[in-house]
Amino acid sequence: MAQDKAAVRKILDKVKAEGRASLTAPEGKLVCDAYGIPVPKEGVAATAAEAVSLAAGMGFPVVLKIVSPDILHKTEAGGVLVGVKSAQDVEQGFATIMANARKYSASAKLQGVQVQQMLAGGQEVIVGAVTDPSFGKLVAFGLGGVLVEVLKDITFRLAPASREDALSMLDGIAAAEILKGVRGAEPVSREALANLIVGVSQLVSDFPEIAEMDLNPVFATRDGAIAADVRIVADWNPAPARHRPSEAEIVGAMNRIMKPDAVAVIGASAEDGKIGNSVMKNLINGGYQGKIYPINPSAAEIMGLKAYKSVKDIPGEVDVAVFAIPAKFVAQALVEVGEKKIPGAVLIPSGFAETGNVEGQQEIQEIGRKYNVRLMGPNIYGFYYTWKNLCATFCTSYDVKGHTALSSQSGGIGMAIIGFSRSAKMGVSAIVGLGNKSDLDEDDLLVFFEQDENTHIIAMHCEDLKDGRAFAEVAKRVSKKKPVVMLKAGRTSAGAKAASSHTGALAGNDKIYDDVLRQSGVIRAPGLRDMLDYARAIPLLATPKGENVVIITGAGGSGVLLSDACVDNGLKLMAMPADLDAAFRKFIPPFGAAGNPVDITGGEPPKTYQNTIRLGLEDPRIHALILGYWHTIITPPMVFAKLVVEVVEEMKAKGIQKPIVASLAGDVQVEEAAEYLYQHGIPAYAYSTEIPVAVLGAKYQWARGAGLI
Amino acid sequence: MAQDKAAVRKILDKVKAEGRASLTAPEGKLVCDAYGIPVPKEGVAATAAEAVSLAAGMGFPVVLKIVSPDILHKTEAGGVLVGVKSAQDVEQGFATIMANARKYSASAKLQGVQVQQMLAGGQEVIVGAVTDPSFGKLVAFGLGGVLVEVLKDITFRLAPASREDALSMLDGIAAAEILKGVRGAEPVSREALANLIVGVSQLVSDFPEIAEMDLNPVFATRDGAIAADVRIVADWNPAPARHRPSEAEIVGAMNRIMKPDAVAVIGASAEDGKIGNSVMKNLINGGYQGKIYPINPSAAEIMGLKAYKSVKDIPGEVDVAVFAIPAKFVAQALVEVGEKKIPGAVLIPSGFAETGNVEGQQEIQEIGRKYNVRLMGPNIYGFYYTWKNLCATFCTSYDVKGHTALSSQSGGIGMAIIGFSRSAKMGVSAIVGLGNKSDLDEDDLLVFFEQDENTHIIAMHCEDLKDGRAFAEVAKRVSKKKPVVMLKAGRTSAGAKAASSHTGALAGNDKIYDDVLRQSGVIRAPGLRDMLDYARAIPLLATPKGENVVIITGAGGSGVLLSDACVDNGLKLMAMPADLDAAFRKFIPPFGAAGNPVDITGGEPPKTYQNTIRLGLEDPRIHALILGYWHTIITPPMVFAKLVVEVVEEMKAKGIQKPIVASLAGDVQVEEAAEYLYQHGIPAYAYSTEIPVAVLGAKYQWARGAGLI
Repeated sequence: MAQDKAAVRKILDKVKAEGRASLTAPEGKLVCDAYGIPVPKEGVAATAAEAVSLAAGMGFPVVLKIVSPDILHKTEAGGVLVGVKSAQDVEQGFATIMANARKYSASAKLQGVQVQQMLAGGQEVIVGAVTDPSFGKLVAFGLGGVLVEVLKDITFRLAPASREDALSMLDGIAAAEILKGVRGAEPVSREALANLIVGVSQLVSDFPEIAEMDLNPVFATRDGAIAADVRIVADWNPAPARHRPSEAEIVGAMNRIMKPDAVAVIGASAEDGKIGNSVMKNLINGGYQGKIYPINPSAAEIMGLKAYKSVKDIPGEVDVAVFAIPAKFVAQALVEVGEKKIPGAVLIPSGFAETGNVEGQQEIQEIGRKYNVRLMGPNIYGFYYTWKNLCATFCTSYDVKGHTALSSQSGGIGMAIIGFSRSAKMGVSAIVGLGNKSDLDEDDLLVFFEQDENTHIIAMHCEDLKDGRAFAEVAKRVSKKKPVVMLKAGRTSAGAKAASSHTGALAGNDKIYDDVLRQSGVIRAPGLRDMLDYARAIPLLATPKGENVVIITGAGGSGVLLSDACVDNGLKLMAMPADLDAAFRKFIPPFGAAGNPVDITGGEPPKTYQNTIRLGLEDPRIHALILGYWHTIITPPMVFAKLVVEVVEEMKAKGIQKPIVASLAGDVQVEEAAEYLYQHGIPAYAYSTEIPVAVLGAKYQWARGAGLI
Repeated sequence: MAQDKAAVRKILDKVKAEGRASLTAPEGKLVCDAYGIPVPKEGVAATAAEAVSLAAGMGFPVVLKIVSPDILHKTEAGGVLVGVKSAQDVEQGFATIMANARKYSASAKLQGVQVQQMLAGGQEVIVGAVTDPSFGKLVAFGLGGVLVEVLKDITFRLAPASREDALSMLDGIAAAEILKGVRGAEPVSREALANLIVGVSQLVSDFPEIAEMDLNPVFATRDGAIAADVRIVADWNPAPARHRPSEAEIVGAMNRIMKPDAVAVIGASAEDGKIGNSVMKNLINGGYQGKIYPINPSAAEIMGLKAYKSVKDIPGEVDVAVFAIPAKFVAQALVEVGEKKIPGAVLIPSGFAETGNVEGQQEIQEIGRKYNVRLMGPNIYGFYYTWKNLCATFCTSYDVKGHTALSSQSGGIGMAIIGFSRSAKMGVSAIVGLGNKSDLDEDDLLVFFEQDENTHIIAMHCEDLKDGRAFAEVAKRVSKKKPVVMLKAGRTSAGAKAASSHTGALAGNDKIYDDVLRQSGVIRAPGLRDMLDYARAIPLLATPKGENVVIITGAGGSGVLLSDACVDNGLKLMAMPADLDAAFRKFIPPFGAAGNPVDITGGEPPKTYQNTIRLGLEDPRIHALILGYWHTIITPPMVFAKLVVEVVEEMKAKGIQKPIVASLAGDVQVEEAAEYLYQHGIPAYAYSTEIPVAVLGAKYQWARGAGLI
């Protein structure tokens, strides 16, 4: 596609020089022309005679529109006439529009009337671009008219959007079917629409001063897509980009911070109840094997360790300094940390932006930048890195090693993460508090976890992304290797209001988050418990090799609910081939139902579960199993749990691994059975048909996003 | 509204006499006229000249349509011309349509061309009626065009619909806002649309042989609503209505069955592992105080009780007979039960319709009807009625008394109910298995539970409703007194397919279930765990007196997630009045956030929770509280739990009761605290911000449906 940047630059310079923010329609058309964005034939007439001549040249009917830099809402001003059919009507129409515009605003500068080729037929769509404070340039697509305005049926992608992104947008709206042609209408050209979307996204990326752009309506037909109306608004003073160190710098600093060989505790204390005491206890009792340097101006020794007045007095290198001192002393201590060339500061203290002390937070940010010290927090519980036995926190300790890394923006949610993890015996690699995110952000963590050999999955709670664009870029890459789950709080306007009241974070439009997270391969958890359930189950599940899911159930009733849950979670129930159906039927009673779900019926012995599950694992056409167990005397819960584990182990020995989840319906003994299954790598849940399917759905979502199926 | 039943009867009789199922357009118009449903002026022309004369009479433009009983899809046949503007065009159009129709079907009987006043402008909507096998006549409403066809944005109500029902339909579609006028369009007349909906619903109710009716499009404007096209299809052999005993008969029989003074166990056995032995053990060991009569032809005594050869040999009255014999012996034993005049048979045996033995099931149904014996099942686990210490089941016993009644269609789900109840220490009044529902259905249970003094809430799992209309009628009344929760399995097409494979139940369109359940005041649970959570929490929550919900939280992060959950669950966060805001501020640190959520911040002592919760309960403008607790050393979990219970008790003593739920974020100790709160009547959940709000939302949904707020 032709991209005449010089032409656009010239127009924008002129608009800026004239002190305007909005481009006129003809200017907008020229910008579109420069980027190969199709617009109708048109011209501006200063007189009625000129209008008639222009219209004759492009053919009737035409549209007439007032041209004035002072009239933005032309329809309101009576400045638009559509379907003008003859020379005589054009002549009259010119006069009418000029008169209306004058009546609307006596002071408006009227430059004439635009005569435009009238587009008719085709599907009306909207293509636009916006500038989001966190994500930057985004391109938007929706259907015209009430669908966008009433049903908010619109979708966003980061700009510049690839052709693939653009095509995904056409399927990304609820009413996508309309574009394929319904009620006898012809399908629209997907290629032409995608080109137009890519063009708009490239334009706003090349010219950051274009703050907003609206092509509304665009007429899409079988043959093309033409933007009937163009609106472009510039912002001549865009916000400066956020500072971002290079990825090599991030990795270098983060590896020292998260896996330190030496930790300083600023404000270390021997006094029970002090935060500096809790941190010391967690470090020592947690079994951390690196050097620990207590910093306290008035103590020679703390908990058996030599204390120092300042980090600058420490003889050796220090990787990270944990701050356990009041906010007002942080800046000075941070300067010393900088002078000591410690790469990271864990700022537990509160009393910064979250309490209105924005200046205090800016001060420490500036110190961090000056000395190249990365800041975690302030206003956090600290962090855990279990593989180093490191609890750099004042909260309860946590030491169950595993491969799940978690982070939270809020301390309360961090505590819920620890409680859930301990209760569920969930192994973790790291738990990190991000709090006010004065510096370290989710994207920094992602860059670290990407290359951290102990982390296989990353789950994050956040209320905002300070730099959504950086996050999306990193997540898109990382999520191809390791699943990334996000709980985005403040989804709703009420939630967003609560978020801004407690962190000062500007919650973005949730639809933007939703689309960009999906575009980046991130699995979005609908709630806190879901995030925790996903974080626990996903690493245990084998990656599916295809979309064919089969339900094997003892309880027909569970089979129905599990099928519902499959639809809810985007899973595809395999259409059972005849030979496989026959093979299953061999194992189940004649009145059982094969097909999918495979209903083995309730009264069956362990052998029936065993045979059908083995078949489900052995047949290569099946890619994932959902088990529905029904508690009976013939096959008690633990018998079921053990036989499942046996079959799975037997298959694993043969090199067969498929994701399996289980729903257990029965008396309380099923809780022990679910626990046993979970401890043996099979996510299992008592009294729920929804959660097992939801975690399998999350695994599938990841595998699809990573291009593995 | 005029309702000329005789006119409609005459038309229908004629159509039937002619062996047709579809009405012609003119017939449809006459039917509409008879019920005051506005239609355009029109007439049928046999010749082109007649067409011109008709058109001139009603004014141009007009629509021309072929009239033929053999052509249903007129557009496909080239039999429709719209916007015909002059006499000359009408003359030509007549010829074109007749020629097209002849080409489409050489054998079709062509009766002429309908000339119709052309409607333009206004909003296109659709009003229709369908006949559902379970719910009977339903009236439907949606927006015209792609909105209904692509987005399935349509809503149903039972016919006849009241004016209130009809008005609720206008707000019951996603695109409801369009009717209020968007983009400068005028709002439509709600009154006219409601009248039209009521008219259609009355018509199909008065004439059950009208199987389907479509008014599509209806043009709705500021002044009225006119149906431009009418399609009516009759079914001359509608299915006969299901037999329903009178409510007095239901109550009489159900009270004896559910609260029996004497139980016979047919197939009672002394042999371990037999179903008849499990039932005997459960009755005796469960502590049932009524008479127990074992029936066994080859034993004199079972478990210390005198055995009988047949129920007919029992000296006294018997209220219910529990069947624990193979399917093939059921019919004969049932006849004896009938002859003994026992009002209820609990049919545990499987081997009936669910295994394909439809005749066997019909046979017992007929016996039941003949002898007036109500049948529970077959293919069930039986039932529990705790207040009689009655476990008439072969499954594990259950004896925790409470006020929640539960039922399930499936045995597996029944076992999950028992397991969850025991694990959660949930008191229940009854648990009932309905299985194949050969006779007793959810509506019978509702009628019983309505007047059962031990039941305060009813939760039901079902895959279909055999008689959805009867259920809806009863539920509408009962739900005003006691909350009714339903888990409708087979919501999705995959789920519905699974349902039909295992019970032969025809799963209805889920949108119909959704709308009718809401119309009936039933709270629909999205999943199994939700149903169980609702069943446990709702009876504990006081009924709110208004919509003002306030969140009080120690963790700002929980506050955001709780706010999100409020929006998701239709709860309204109170806009905090200035004086109340000031009153809260007095108790919280200066950097805490008042407003709503009230963020007391994390480091606060018990007193702060206490003061703010007390204020939340005392101020009459607040109607419900959601608490977000953050585990700290200053206010440990059990300290929090106890102080909450104290404040709640203190307020209760003053006569103040409001619904309160709690979300606990913290280490594992919060589980004990949640348990303590629950045991003291406050639904509380560890590691979840969604469930507490969902159960409060369910309580609100009930209170609104029951007209209490």
